Amino acid sequence: MAKVTYEKEITALLVIDPYNDFISEGGKIWDRIRAVAEANDCVSHMLQVLNAAREAKLRTFYALHHRYRPGDYESWKYIAPIQKAAWMRKTFEYGTWGGEIRPEFAPKPGEIVATEHWCSSGFANTDLDLQLKKHGVHQLIVIGLIAHTCIESTVRFAAELGYEVTVVKDATADYSDEEMHAALDVNLPNYASAIVSTDEIVAALAAA
Amino acid sequence: MAKVTYEKEITALLVIDPYNDFISEGGKIWDRIRAVAEANDCVSHMLQVLNAAREAKLRTFYALHHRYRPGDYESWKYIAPIQKAAWMRKTFEYGTWGGEIRPEFAPKPGEIVATEHWCSSGFANTDLDLQLKKHGVHQLIVIGLIAHTCIESTVRFAAELGYEVTVVKDATADYSDEEMHAALDVNLPNYASAIVSTDEIVAALAAA
Amino acid sequence: MAKVTYEKEITALLVIDPYNDFISEGGKIWDRIRAVAEANDCVSHMLQVLNAAREAKLRTFYALHHRYRPGDYESWKYIAPIQKAAWMRKTFEYGTWGGEIRPEFAPKPGEIVATEHWCSSGFANTDLDLQLKKHGVHQLIVIGLIAHTCIESTVRFAAELGYEVTVVKDATADYSDEEMHAALDVNLPNYASAIVSTDEIVAALAAA
Amino acid sequence: MAKVTYEKEITALLVIDPYNDFISEGGKIWDRIRAVAEANDCVSHMLQVLNAAREAKLRTFYALHHRYRPGDYESWKYIAPIQKAAWMRKTFEYGTWGGEIRPEFAPKPGEIVATEHWCSSGFANTDLDLQLKKHGVHQLIVIGLIAHTCIESTVRFAAELGYEVTVVKDATADYSDEEMHAALDVNLPNYASAIVSTDEIVAALAAA
Repeated sequence: MAKVTYEKEITALLVIDPYNDFISEGGKIWDRIRAVAEANDCVSHMLQVLNAAREAKLRTFYALHHRYRPGDYESWKYIAPIQKAAWMRKTFEYGTWGGEIRPEFAPKPGEIVATEHWCSSGFANTDLDLQLKKHGVHQLIVIGLIAHTCIESTVRFAAELGYEVTVVKDATADYSDEEMHAALDVNLPNYASAIVSTDEIVAALAAA
Repeated sequence: MAKVTYEKEITALLVIDPYNDFISEGGKIWDRIRAVAEANDCVSHMLQVLNAAREAKLRTFYALHHRYRPGDYESWKYIAPIQKAAWMRKTFEYGTWGGEIRPEFAPKPGEIVATEHWCSSGFANTDLDLQLKKHGVHQLIVIGLIAHTCIESTVRFAAELGYEVTVVKDATADYSDEEMHAALDVNLPNYASAIVSTDEIVAALAAA
Repeated sequence: MAKVTYEKEITALLVIDPYNDFISEGGKIWDRIRAVAEANDCVSHMLQVLNAAREAKLRTFYALHHRYRPGDYESWKYIAPIQKAAWMRKTFEYGTWGGEIRPEFAPKPGEIVATEHWCSSGFANTDLDLQLKKHGVHQLIVIGLIAHTCIESTVRFAAELGYEVTVVKDATADYSDEEMHAALDVNLPNYASAIVSTDEIVAALAAA
Repeated sequence: MAKVTYEKEITALLVIDPYNDFISEGGKIWDRIRAVAEANDCVSHMLQVLNAAREAKLRTFYALHHRYRPGDYESWKYIAPIQKAAWMRKTFEYGTWGGEIRPEFAPKPGEIVATEHWCSSGFANTDLDLQLKKHGVHQLIVIGLIAHTCIESTVRFAAELGYEVTVVKDATADYSDEEMHAALDVNLPNYASAIVSTDEIVAALAAA
């Protein structure tokens, strides 16, 4: 895989779904993610990358899944299985702790929170592409959850829309090693120009 | 997985990349696909589904990858790895036999060929979504190549854009069983409402 | 202009920007709109159409402009003049009365409020297209403000995306007759299949 | 209107629909455009801007309307009036002289021709946004036809998608002064950051 260099002016960090339901003890999905997330130290790596990006004065963007609200899906004629699951589980329920961003990942002033997405891609039916363009961004460093759904869909969309993407492989997690493998080893190498470790991206940002 | 029923008026077949380079003896990629494609009888299943759809008077759409032309990529500042590979290989070269649709899959009058896509999703940067809406389509039956790239990206996009999708699992193929597994078993069950065999879809269409 | 008939199952009402700032006494923009809006009885016509649509059991959707929040535009490298004006005026300021929907137009349960748009089109960078597809909608009846900006851009986008549009000409308003004329007489006849009066649409919906 | 400065690296010329049918003696639409186009010397201004952009080493992009082909619209359930007119007139018929680019405007190697658009916006259902991003473009200089349809829709879309736009007011034309006025004076000032003359843009490009 080619080594990617980052021009600070056109590079941004994209943090995907750092909700309590995903990455906090007690979150609705945490127990299903815990094994993989603890094995690769996902949460503290996410935080390391976020801090390194802020330190390097990169712009940070957040792509957040739709928070569940009553009535969201009842009238839909067509629904994807992953949306039906979100409906059943009331994942990221609006107004609850699970639907809040884990405190260490709270956006700071000047950081951009895109409108919420309804399925897995942070780009689909949101203002993420607009906000990236308004800030002149062409290169994305992606961290967050879940590897084979939101991360992979967001990276596939990013590549289709013309962005150059780096994925930080130990700052993401999944339900199982098999799903991590499908995302990180089978699919993402087609769409991400680099798949790196936290150590590697932190070093690259310090040098940029 | 829920059983899907098809309303003919709003259902279409979507055929993805039935190029000689992919599915004909002598095509540039055929040798890499052959093992999986022959094991599941991919090409004749694709043809069976196409015939069944035509028989049932479903509208058929084609999503085709960009045919390589000189100068396509030289001036791009950003390029995804899968696009770089297409560039190097000159896959589906315009004006050559490899960039032609395998004859049995040639579109008939009244069938819709979407504009070519640049990466893996038949929806990205094309008129496929428009053409589906102009024909009142909400349900898609998807066949073609390659499972973990174009099929999966097109299905992910279809779900994000609001379509209900069925994938025909033995009317697609891939470079290896591992990649087939990542697409058909790990990822697509989140985005496709049904993943069925050729026999199943042919029976469902005959009954519709 | 061809007479349009409405299939209830696939037709929706789209209400654009019924904010206090636009259509309530005391709103930031109301004084600039008042002359045209009072001359054609815009607000009570909007209400008549909304009631007729609800009566006829059409699904109703709301396309709402971004509510101003501090920090929205400071970091943008590129900004359109109409966005700069919204920034300067703090139009539809979040958390203020001006940024609330005029009470008679409050969405009811089951009605869909799309994510906020940043410029003039209710479709751009929002989930409006998705929500329409999820509900099987292909025909739109459009009312609201302002004729030559948000109405016209939303209708142009609707046509580009494949929808069939009806505009209710006395359920919209503008700063001047010249701008109404540019929208209703010069431009919209290219993109809207019908431009009708409130009386005409109310009768058509009663008969549908 | 604020003075716009152009960074060459991120600025492109966008040429819209320089078809014989529009701007050549004998073209299907030319007789309806001729009065306005001759009054403001549209065609030679378009050529001046194109030459100045090439001289300044700006990248040039072409946004072209769909060329009519038999069968295009017969199966559409929904069609906008402007599309119906294109169908009836067979405007820009594929394989005919009218559907060719006027020779002086032929794209040169390295210039990018976007996929054809179906209605008025060069961005809708095409790869124009992708191609602009792949080349790092954020600022657009727009010339071509017709002011109140394709130019205005393309500029409205460009603004919605995050681009900064300059329109060259004497390098466009229309059926009548009223339609030119609606586009150039009423609507485009909301979406284009600058509306300039050919002399002004040629001077600005020479200085850039």
